[in-house]
Amino acid sequence: MNQHNPVVQLLLTGNEIMSGDTVDSNSSMIALRLAELGIAIHRKVTVGDAPALLTAELRDLCKQSDVVIVNGGLGPTIDDLTAEILAAVADVPLQENPLARLHIENWCEARGAAVNAANLKQALLPAGATIVDNAIGSAVGFELEVEGCLVICTPGVPSELRLMLDNILQNLRERLGKSGEVDIIRLQTFGLGESTAQQIISDQYSDWPAQVELGFRAGAPQMEIKLTVSDPAARDAQLACKEKLYQLFGDHIIGEGDSSLAQQVVTLLADRGETLTTAESCTGGLIASMLTRIPGSSAAFHAGFVTYANSIKQTVLDVPESLLQQSGAVSEGVVIAMAKGAMQRADADYGIAVSGVAGPDGGTEEKPVGTVWLAWGSRDNIQTRCLLWPVERTLFQTMIAAAGLDMIRRRLLGIEQDPSYFRSRQAK
Amino acid sequence: MNQHNPVVQLLLTGNEIMSGDTVDSNSSMIALRLAELGIAIHRKVTVGDAPALLTAELRDLCKQSDVVIVNGGLGPTIDDLTAEILAAVADVPLQENPLARLHIENWCEARGAAVNAANLKQALLPAGATIVDNAIGSAVGFELEVEGCLVICTPGVPSELRLMLDNILQNLRERLGKSGEVDIIRLQTFGLGESTAQQIISDQYSDWPAQVELGFRAGAPQMEIKLTVSDPAARDAQLACKEKLYQLFGDHIIGEGDSSLAQQVVTLLADRGETLTTAESCTGGLIASMLTRIPGSSAAFHAGFVTYANSIKQTVLDVPESLLQQSGAVSEGVVIAMAKGAMQRADADYGIAVSGVAGPDGGTEEKPVGTVWLAWGSRDNIQTRCLLWPVERTLFQTMIAAAGLDMIRRRLLGIEQDPSYFRSRQAK
Repeated sequence: MNQHNPVVQLLLTGNEIMSGDTVDSNSSMIALRLAELGIAIHRKVTVGDAPALLTAELRDLCKQSDVVIVNGGLGPTIDDLTAEILAAVADVPLQENPLARLHIENWCEARGAAVNAANLKQALLPAGATIVDNAIGSAVGFELEVEGCLVICTPGVPSELRLMLDNILQNLRERLGKSGEVDIIRLQTFGLGESTAQQIISDQYSDWPAQVELGFRAGAPQMEIKLTVSDPAARDAQLACKEKLYQLFGDHIIGEGDSSLAQQVVTLLADRGETLTTAESCTGGLIASMLTRIPGSSAAFHAGFVTYANSIKQTVLDVPESLLQQSGAVSEGVVIAMAKGAMQRADADYGIAVSGVAGPDGGTEEKPVGTVWLAWGSRDNIQTRCLLWPVERTLFQTMIAAAGLDMIRRRLLGIEQDPSYFRSRQAK
Repeated sequence: MNQHNPVVQLLLTGNEIMSGDTVDSNSSMIALRLAELGIAIHRKVTVGDAPALLTAELRDLCKQSDVVIVNGGLGPTIDDLTAEILAAVADVPLQENPLARLHIENWCEARGAAVNAANLKQALLPAGATIVDNAIGSAVGFELEVEGCLVICTPGVPSELRLMLDNILQNLRERLGKSGEVDIIRLQTFGLGESTAQQIISDQYSDWPAQVELGFRAGAPQMEIKLTVSDPAARDAQLACKEKLYQLFGDHIIGEGDSSLAQQVVTLLADRGETLTTAESCTGGLIASMLTRIPGSSAAFHAGFVTYANSIKQTVLDVPESLLQQSGAVSEGVVIAMAKGAMQRADADYGIAVSGVAGPDGGTEEKPVGTVWLAWGSRDNIQTRCLLWPVERTLFQTMIAAAGLDMIRRRLLGIEQDPSYFRSRQAK
């Protein structure tokens, strides 16, 4: 194997990926993890669960590569062909692997289920294969050397793959030596678009150092900015770039690594011993759900209210009926009353309230789909804004929930000036 | 070109896809649209923006295929190589295409911008190419015949691709005729594992007809079972398989097509003019969020309560303090009181209440991580179960939220017998 620039290719299998029923996010996950070792994927090939095609493809890939990572096809069904194909390509028999069998027996026992034939199929591996532990699923991963090429077979279930990649990276690190490690700084942002960020950086930082690779990963709701260096001597330049990005985008940067808005809000509140509550209409519980996904969120979040109907806004949050009748549910007065009512009822220090038109129906000329009133703050200082964010329903809910969390984050950090997305998304 | 079973391959280009910074959803979009014509994609290859690799790959694909769809690389930057590569493979010059130039001029004019060199690069196409209109972007698509293989070049921006696919499908339909359309039945299930389902089908239906392709798509929380036939004469067999699956898994089948648990619950309730409320502790608003993602859910869902702290269970849902002290928050009495309190406060016909230990912390010997009490029903008939579902926090929340919705679905359908996952997930 070439230690310095190994040729790594991916073979993705599965009819559900070929048919488009499933969007493949696994190859992205694998690529991002390999980047930690400074390994770029050379090429990837995707084929359905067709034995002849899979065999020919894997044979070609083994000839061309130092490492082939196969994803998918480890399951218990007859579509799941990876072990069989690899055995054929390596010209070794399939045989029951005792460690894989033990794993399956333990897995079934932990679930109080009997081991069945479909489960046991997952213990049939190519002779000579080494297993890779699957921390949560029944199918182990496995590795086999085929004429100098290391073939690593991984599960298609993303949560299983995620955990398995730690072991695979460790094996690759040992095999490839320490060479080529890269240093990556990831900054999580909210409210910045990729093209805007790129333009601002080009305008403001014309002497960007060539050794620091700049990358963007657009997501919803967050966008990640990535600074990658492969030469240890460039780490100072990398840190200087990071400082510059903080200067350019400071208040839009949530944090580094895997930071999320909800994580930051929970941490900031927990550190202060304070709590937040939510009063949600159009986001329908999503803000509460984003907060409670975070382990330990119970320290900062005790109660949330989904008040979808007007009658509930009255009875649960004490929003005056007259206000709802005069201004309508999507109005400044109503979100202020919702936030106050929620803070009162939950005895919370901070509150977020949202009421808007998520669509696809319910828009009017005055309040079209995408209109939303947002209130946030503490009992003695509630701020509000009306935004227009006319995107598909679930994306609307995601972005508005994130905007609410972002405004609490900004309040807690004392950087509550209007973020740029307030200007671009301002309702007329 | 083979009219009946054309070999169609995809070539996806872009460093952002290879690096994993962008998850490729375009190839899924293309595959789902081609399936409307009964065309399955044979294979797809993804490479970065490297001229030599792209050229070699496109040359190979043209030799092996009737149609190659190239996605990406049409933009204005120097990384965008598709036109240049295709010209090289077809051995024709790049030249300014008058229709492409007109499109760019109109596009710039509509935006009040001057035409610049970067824009004009997008008018340089391989000689002989036919353009495909881009309804929103500056880069037109284009098609070129290369030794009997039709190469179709499409933009990487998903919104541009989506609109362009209508034209491309129309062209392909004319070129290929109407032959080869397939018929797909998709059944959505909850509470069935892929291996269990496969095993039951093999045991109970040994004479499964060969013309009906059986596929599974495992997701969280739902699993899809797919029955595909490509021969119209096999449609009766397909329907017979569907009937059989209803007999085998009836109560686990949520519906067909894109059905979801939340969608079914909303529809069933709305049809009856009834409403549901939620009282969530460990799921933290996720059940409410799943319901309110559904357009029109306001007809059936007026209020949800996230009562994370014990004090809130008391003040908001009137759970007696003595009950919380005696039995703890994760107990049968507490979820019954939560469900009753929520139905009372929301004036709802049905309620779901959950309280459990989502982890990673907070487990005890008596109530380990993954323990959850679930209550569901109407004011005069509340049922409960204690389950043990020890998986990672967000997956736990997803599965428990879905189980709650499933039990309401079963109640509304009158099929409330214990589902199989109650047996396998029963707490000791």
